[in-house]
Amino acid sequence: MIRILLNGVLGRMGEAVNSAVSLKEDVEIALGVDPAYSEDRAFPFPVYSSLQQVPEDADFDVIVDFSRFSAVPELLKFAVSAGKPLVLCTTGLTPEILSLVDEASKNIGIFRSANMSVGIYVLTKLAKEAAAMLGGDFDIEIVEKHHNNKLDAPSGTALAIADSINDTLGGSLEYVFDRHDRLQKRDKKELGISSVRGGNIVGDHEVIYAGRNEVIELSHRAQSREVFADGAVRAALFMAGRPAGKYSMEDLFK
Amino acid sequence: MIRILLNGVLGRMGEAVNSAVSLKEDVEIALGVDPAYSEDRAFPFPVYSSLQQVPEDADFDVIVDFSRFSAVPELLKFAVSAGKPLVLCTTGLTPEILSLVDEASKNIGIFRSANMSVGIYVLTKLAKEAAAMLGGDFDIEIVEKHHNNKLDAPSGTALAIADSINDTLGGSLEYVFDRHDRLQKRDKKELGISSVRGGNIVGDHEVIYAGRNEVIELSHRAQSREVFADGAVRAALFMAGRPAGKYSMEDLFK
Amino acid sequence: MIRILLNGVLGRMGEAVNSAVSLKEDVEIALGVDPAYSEDRAFPFPVYSSLQQVPEDADFDVIVDFSRFSAVPELLKFAVSAGKPLVLCTTGLTPEILSLVDEASKNIGIFRSANMSVGIYVLTKLAKEAAAMLGGDFDIEIVEKHHNNKLDAPSGTALAIADSINDTLGGSLEYVFDRHDRLQKRDKKELGISSVRGGNIVGDHEVIYAGRNEVIELSHRAQSREVFADGAVRAALFMAGRPAGKYSMEDLFK
Amino acid sequence: MIRILLNGVLGRMGEAVNSAVSLKEDVEIALGVDPAYSEDRAFPFPVYSSLQQVPEDADFDVIVDFSRFSAVPELLKFAVSAGKPLVLCTTGLTPEILSLVDEASKNIGIFRSANMSVGIYVLTKLAKEAAAMLGGDFDIEIVEKHHNNKLDAPSGTALAIADSINDTLGGSLEYVFDRHDRLQKRDKKELGISSVRGGNIVGDHEVIYAGRNEVIELSHRAQSREVFADGAVRAALFMAGRPAGKYSMEDLFK
Repeated sequence: MIRILLNGVLGRMGEAVNSAVSLKEDVEIALGVDPAYSEDRAFPFPVYSSLQQVPEDADFDVIVDFSRFSAVPELLKFAVSAGKPLVLCTTGLTPEILSLVDEASKNIGIFRSANMSVGIYVLTKLAKEAAAMLGGDFDIEIVEKHHNNKLDAPSGTALAIADSINDTLGGSLEYVFDRHDRLQKRDKKELGISSVRGGNIVGDHEVIYAGRNEVIELSHRAQSREVFADGAVRAALFMAGRPAGKYSMEDLFK
Repeated sequence: MIRILLNGVLGRMGEAVNSAVSLKEDVEIALGVDPAYSEDRAFPFPVYSSLQQVPEDADFDVIVDFSRFSAVPELLKFAVSAGKPLVLCTTGLTPEILSLVDEASKNIGIFRSANMSVGIYVLTKLAKEAAAMLGGDFDIEIVEKHHNNKLDAPSGTALAIADSINDTLGGSLEYVFDRHDRLQKRDKKELGISSVRGGNIVGDHEVIYAGRNEVIELSHRAQSREVFADGAVRAALFMAGRPAGKYSMEDLFK
Repeated sequence: MIRILLNGVLGRMGEAVNSAVSLKEDVEIALGVDPAYSEDRAFPFPVYSSLQQVPEDADFDVIVDFSRFSAVPELLKFAVSAGKPLVLCTTGLTPEILSLVDEASKNIGIFRSANMSVGIYVLTKLAKEAAAMLGGDFDIEIVEKHHNNKLDAPSGTALAIADSINDTLGGSLEYVFDRHDRLQKRDKKELGISSVRGGNIVGDHEVIYAGRNEVIELSHRAQSREVFADGAVRAALFMAGRPAGKYSMEDLFK
Repeated sequence: MIRILLNGVLGRMGEAVNSAVSLKEDVEIALGVDPAYSEDRAFPFPVYSSLQQVPEDADFDVIVDFSRFSAVPELLKFAVSAGKPLVLCTTGLTPEILSLVDEASKNIGIFRSANMSVGIYVLTKLAKEAAAMLGGDFDIEIVEKHHNNKLDAPSGTALAIADSINDTLGGSLEYVFDRHDRLQKRDKKELGISSVRGGNIVGDHEVIYAGRNEVIELSHRAQSREVFADGAVRAALFMAGRPAGKYSMEDLFK
């Protein structure tokens, strides 16, 4: 039985991790931490309002974090001090925090991924392979769809997929986000990225390879944010007991 | 048997009309006109290199035109003089030519449509109806995909669909072509239009209605340019014998 | 403020209705009923373990029911006795129960729909209209996708859409569920219905109109079961204060 | 310049090969063969009505065959005698003919593929890889769409993709073609294959991986039969000068 310290237990993703864990038999939440915790709310495990309050003898195997970027430095200190591996799901980390992550990974195992969904990892891997086989002959484009509250466009995941494809093709591509103000044919080097926004779409990503008389499309649809919690739990199971170092989805599939 | 005078018989669309006609039993090409015609090439019907050369007693019921915008003024004169209805498929007409079309339609029947595909007409009609039922609660977006030689973006058809939807919703929408340079939530008034370019895609149009927890998509895919020829032949059958006036796909479905 | 009596408050759909209501300002849950209720669980409104226990002077405007078919007869009696309109979302009603529903609708307003999603109603309406415009020339097929625990295939919704299309075309179509054991061309009269099962897909329905050189597709994707709760709440707002009679989504859009 | 002997030059696929070759600079048709040839029709290269009539000193590098299965035995004799590699695109070969192919491949290079489209090869390869990564956790289904004149269902290509996936997963899957006559949950071992038929759809294949809260789809759409001619020409360029042996798309991508 793998036991998780869940940092950010009260947030939407914390709840999703809790729910994902409850469906599995080989993992449980040992304790939770959340600054917003008040004693009104009962949990089947102890919850603390800060990492400092976690007892020294707390028994857990791995930390899963869905908090916020500003809380990460303290979390890293805690994890190193406890000597426990960390699944770091919080996004939007600054370069300063990223270098703290690098530093900490010399002492503990740290798992990070641009997108915690297993499916997005698979999509990205297939997209690279398709680019290697079809690049040059086929034009590559990406369409992503997200909910109407999303601030940024394109999605970080769409950009990460584009970068993976571009790396595969030797960095020869130029991203195009807008074609409406021009009157010209598509250049071979273009990789168009379109962003659709509407409703509460969780996240659709589609990679299109358009050739002469045929089109291949690779798509991923996240149906619920729980999919990221599922990925975090899968990563937690993988990380328990791992030595120091940096880990990613790549390692999960080795 | 309806007999067609095909203006632009040697062009790609002229060939497609010829081929579409050959599949039908109630229509035939009576004669063709094309400035590029040379006698090397045999046709099962007489072909002339200009409208002036068409004999006065030529026997046909309707003119189908896939030529170029600069040839339209002369065509209108010819059609009025002959007193025959005209299916005018040439696009890119200037305001001057459009007023000539209006003028000519007082004397003969003239059929025009932004897109000669029957399917695009149906898609547009459904898109308007969906907007009427869902507008306000659902966010509406359009994605169109075309071949890598297309100069303009978005496609004229995508814009025509957007305009139809916008008309239905009282003109309240603002078209958005690019979201990558901003950091803000989608405004209720936005109608995003994305243009994908690649390979030799003939033309895909997709209208997306994204609501809370559900998404409706209406899409049209043209598999071959012949679809526009099919529409032209269908229009020709409809126009034969019609009185003066302006006609559109709307009339075809009455 | 419209006040709902929620029958089946503890079920998955009851929870979803509760959650949908909490997002709206003009509606609230006045009281809940569920045979599985125990006092351990706190709700911000009174909950009873049977309809009999509801106080006679309970103040509510409309009943929303997500219970089970065997509980419907008693529910109908209760609703008639209370003189309150009913949004009846429970499915799998037997012919006997359906005739009780008819009977009760002489005394109270009863709202029922094969699918409580507003989007499925719109899809069905568009599918009929497309069939009216394209039927004869275009071949019509349906593909539906649902989770791997669904027992029946095709989905009731797919069959309801097929029936709507078939009605529109004068009942001329024959449904085909399996083509693998034959070696023959598609007959004009066929309407193929394919059922895909996998993962926890909530429900995708796609209607395909395939013509010569063009394809139109109308699709609906439910992202979460909450969409049915949203529809129930919308229906509740509509039904409050309505006179006796049978109501459906059709009425919601009038 | 690679020179092709095109067997079946008058057939629909022969015409498509001719057209595909005309778009390329490094390949040309040297001569054609077709039993239906009559001298009425002019070609820019010599055409013969049988392989016997091809002059002994005819100058070509590779044979491309789109004829019919009954013509293949004589073709193999011809190719072996001429000592030229063969791209064998004719389908529906009997076991007897297949053993003749094996025999001939000891003397000449023979290229064969279940589907001559490069894109289908790539789709199949990606589908296997996705199965290797997701199999077990994700349910796999295939939907294929073809024109209304297709006799068989599912398509040979859909079955070939299913077999590739099944091989990858150790042969554990059972194909399901019809779910409408049963009332049971999807078994983990099922691989559903659905066949949609309509219009003149050239060929769509979609592989669906449905997991918990996410779905990956890999799809291929052939827009025109020319895509198979493109693949044949690509194979011809690859085969020119190759030694004896059996070759497939796999070799093209090495």
